[in-house]
Amino acid sequence: MHKINIRDELSTINEHWSQKTIGIANGQLFKLAKGIGETNWHAHDDQDELFIVYKGHLTIQLHDKNIELFEEEMFIVPKGVEHCPKAESEAEFMIVGLNVTSNEAGGKPNL
Amino acid sequence: MHKINIRDELSTINEHWSQKTIGIANGQLFKLAKGIGETNWHAHDDQDELFIVYKGHLTIQLHDKNIELFEEEMFIVPKGVEHCPKAESEAEFMIVGLNVTSNEAGGKPNL
Repeated sequence: MHKINIRDELSTINEHWSQKTIGIANGQLFKLAKGIGETNWHAHDDQDELFIVYKGHLTIQLHDKNIELFEEEMFIVPKGVEHCPKAESEAEFMIVGLNVTSNEAGGKPNL
Repeated sequence: MHKINIRDELSTINEHWSQKTIGIANGQLFKLAKGIGETNWHAHDDQDELFIVYKGHLTIQLHDKNIELFEEEMFIVPKGVEHCPKAESEAEFMIVGLNVTSNEAGGKPNL
């Protein structure tokens, strides 16, 4: 049992759109990631996906609107809703969900 | 579906040790609170409880050590572990868990 410094953990990430799990509580993974550019459009049929931005500006593109997230703003992509995160310059953020979704099914782009 | 600004939501809280739910994802409640002084010692037998500090300094007292949390630091109190949060001056933080625990069983002090 130890504390986790979120910004220190973010500073250790050196691959875009890859998630690093920093904690698990009640079956939820608390994951950190950096992103630039955009992922592919995708949906998670098994889980809601929650984003909290720590640095920069992350756009969660949905089919009917864009959600513009800045530092310490949060958004929940409901289960099954197609989305495509995008960042014009590097953004740093937390993702909470049931498993690591930085894979092809989770929209991870082929960099 | 809309974004949530965590600091704006924190600014609306005017009672210490009361939790305001700002989002629910995969059955987890994302709650905000302000605290000063300390709660009572308690444990949650049904859930892990995750803390992220947004402002100030929150001490999570455990029986064998204290966890000192500052801004953007996170700690998970495992299910069943007795704890007592304490803040010498007002602290602002997020709590994630299965339900609202700002009640007597959850250690809420009789203010």
